[in-house]
Amino acid sequence: MNFKAPRGTHDILPDEAATWQWLESTARESFRRFGYREIRTPLLEHLELFERGTGETSDVVQKEMYAFEKSDTRYALRPEGTPSVVRAYLQASLDKTQPFQKFFYIGPMFRYERPQAGRQRQFHQLGAEVIGADDALLDAEVILLALQVLEGIGLTGQRLIVNSSGCTTCRPGYRDVLHKTLEPHIDGMCADCDMRFKRNVLRILDCKKEVCRRVVATLPKITEHLCDACRAHFDTVLQALDGAGQTYEADPYLVRGLDYYTRTVFEIHHEGLGARGAICGGGRYDNLVETFGGPSLGCTGFSMGMEGTLAVLAGQSGEAVAPSGPGPDLLMVPVGASAENQCFQWSFSLRDQGHYSDITYGSKSVKAKMRAANRSGSIFVAVVGDDELAAGEIIVKRMETGEETKIDVRSGTNQLAAFLYDARTPPT
Amino acid sequence: MNFKAPRGTHDILPDEAATWQWLESTARESFRRFGYREIRTPLLEHLELFERGTGETSDVVQKEMYAFEKSDTRYALRPEGTPSVVRAYLQASLDKTQPFQKFFYIGPMFRYERPQAGRQRQFHQLGAEVIGADDALLDAEVILLALQVLEGIGLTGQRLIVNSSGCTTCRPGYRDVLHKTLEPHIDGMCADCDMRFKRNVLRILDCKKEVCRRVVATLPKITEHLCDACRAHFDTVLQALDGAGQTYEADPYLVRGLDYYTRTVFEIHHEGLGARGAICGGGRYDNLVETFGGPSLGCTGFSMGMEGTLAVLAGQSGEAVAPSGPGPDLLMVPVGASAENQCFQWSFSLRDQGHYSDITYGSKSVKAKMRAANRSGSIFVAVVGDDELAAGEIIVKRMETGEETKIDVRSGTNQLAAFLYDARTPPT
Repeated sequence: MNFKAPRGTHDILPDEAATWQWLESTARESFRRFGYREIRTPLLEHLELFERGTGETSDVVQKEMYAFEKSDTRYALRPEGTPSVVRAYLQASLDKTQPFQKFFYIGPMFRYERPQAGRQRQFHQLGAEVIGADDALLDAEVILLALQVLEGIGLTGQRLIVNSSGCTTCRPGYRDVLHKTLEPHIDGMCADCDMRFKRNVLRILDCKKEVCRRVVATLPKITEHLCDACRAHFDTVLQALDGAGQTYEADPYLVRGLDYYTRTVFEIHHEGLGARGAICGGGRYDNLVETFGGPSLGCTGFSMGMEGTLAVLAGQSGEAVAPSGPGPDLLMVPVGASAENQCFQWSFSLRDQGHYSDITYGSKSVKAKMRAANRSGSIFVAVVGDDELAAGEIIVKRMETGEETKIDVRSGTNQLAAFLYDARTPPT
Repeated sequence: MNFKAPRGTHDILPDEAATWQWLESTARESFRRFGYREIRTPLLEHLELFERGTGETSDVVQKEMYAFEKSDTRYALRPEGTPSVVRAYLQASLDKTQPFQKFFYIGPMFRYERPQAGRQRQFHQLGAEVIGADDALLDAEVILLALQVLEGIGLTGQRLIVNSSGCTTCRPGYRDVLHKTLEPHIDGMCADCDMRFKRNVLRILDCKKEVCRRVVATLPKITEHLCDACRAHFDTVLQALDGAGQTYEADPYLVRGLDYYTRTVFEIHHEGLGARGAICGGGRYDNLVETFGGPSLGCTGFSMGMEGTLAVLAGQSGEAVAPSGPGPDLLMVPVGASAENQCFQWSFSLRDQGHYSDITYGSKSVKAKMRAANRSGSIFVAVVGDDELAAGEIIVKRMETGEETKIDVRSGTNQLAAFLYDARTPPT
């Protein structure tokens, strides 16, 4: 019998987990400074939430949903965070009590797609959602926030791409223009685009196939068909980015794969991700709260793929990007059962005093224990046998220099704790 | 149309999330001092992993598995952490390269049981697993670690209950004794116990029904039937707890609901949880690595229910147990569009300098903005209109005292940032 993690999922072992912790704590610090607070929604939802929210014409819902049925209820493991956050907002009646909210989330998402390099069935996103305001400046804020997270971990070379996707006033007109302009070309385009032509023509702008991209490059631009309000909104976003010294590329053909976007859409690209697309994407979605039965409330946000971000960063630095956790302050190597018991108690007491203290476990030879101690990354190591117990003194060796210090432990670990404390405090 | 979170799941909104963050960071600090490193396994696994690992006679597998089928593969959302951690350990061949590992995990678990007070279908556990050593001291270590986590969040009144459940040498003999002693009584016991009598007689010791408990109280004790090795192991655990000054109750009828335990088992109870059982449980499971196809390796660990722990703590303190996050260092209230743009840029710059700065968004009246500012918990508030922009000076009001300070912003936010920095640094 042989057990493996399910296809498209992977384990994060401690060395790698240290990198994830570091990305998360860096992001949390950015969220704090920008005033975003954490929300945690369930990992599974009623399937209908995503069918209505993410949208039935999106690839996510059409092809990639991790959906299943149980006792006549249709569930889906969440494929993205936005619909759940909006649902939670409405379920808690925040629209009535505190309508303006700035949320962030960090956690696993699930898409039942064919696993391939960089795409997992369980993957992880961090993201932000602002609910309750139409301000164009908030679009600029979430864009700058996403970029701050990436800068916080030292990523360079990311490119910001922005566009407006219009609103219910001006988008129907642009759709008509696209339909008319595309009609003579659609037979030469791919089968997916043929479907998109019928169901959601804007998605054609996002086709990655060369034959389709050539047609797209000749199409009229949405920025030439925006209504006055959308135009002014987009100009405010761009001016705010300019004011913050943030460069960007305005791409009039940028559309996002989800159905709910209105006005501002953006992506952050990095060449380290190759053809896989954006490491971050987002924008405004002013109709989703109403779709879910709430009032008309402006919303904007972003989500960032954590696997992709860490992959790009690892490629940039050529190695593990965050150090794995440091070794113990003190590792004790007990020789014999009574030394083991005594070291256990000392270690417990040092931990209580705030130190990371450990002992070598396992009925190994002293030689094997010393090898483990040398590999442990400990700052200090102390071998404790019957002689040390009898004398009430242990010899603590600083592994970097070999320097040895004798410490009295007859009345417990207070002197030892003070020594370890002094050792990590720089001299004044 | 009205969307709700699925039955048995709940949203954690920002005020509550602050409490969860605090429990997690407290636990992480204990794990660090004890030398446990984080492992993250997928949220779903092949169903067989839990059938073999958690055990087919356990209630978890028999009644509570969140199992589903998709494309002819049987999955389960993980009901507990231990089988996944052991699988990940073997899948990464750690048994060959670094056999001794101390792991911790924090995350969601899923059981498809009838939702009731304190029991959710998606719930959360934190836990520790030591793989690769037989040392009895490690059993004491994980017990003390679990108690440290609870003490770290200020919980009082928890009770430690310990027992040994024997091993493959001595447990069969004890089972025989139980079968013989129970046979005359089994007809008067509950239907579940009748089933347990046939499938796993030890689980009868765990029955909560009064009629069965009366019989259990008269049964022979496992501690009278341990083999010498199990007896010595258990004595070492108890001595180590004594040495650490840790009180405990030895309960010879304590068994755990999962099938894989050997030797030491323990639970931490708190009366605040009422009849719901333990807030933490664990013990040794020396056969699980072999069950999954690995070598014979000793293992021990615990898991702690986070919902239960926070519920007990809230009952103890009578209110929210961790403060929700602090308000902004500075909240700017812009009056007019150019003030809004300028405040946006200043705010962005202050965040870059490490401050939590925010502005009131939404096209609300100045009165509504001031109400929002008063509620925000900000340390300082500044109203910025055309006069302030023209003068290049803003007035920053400390909300606690009403004290006002004029700050020059003609050349950017450096003076403002320094002021905010000084304001939160205690005078020397």
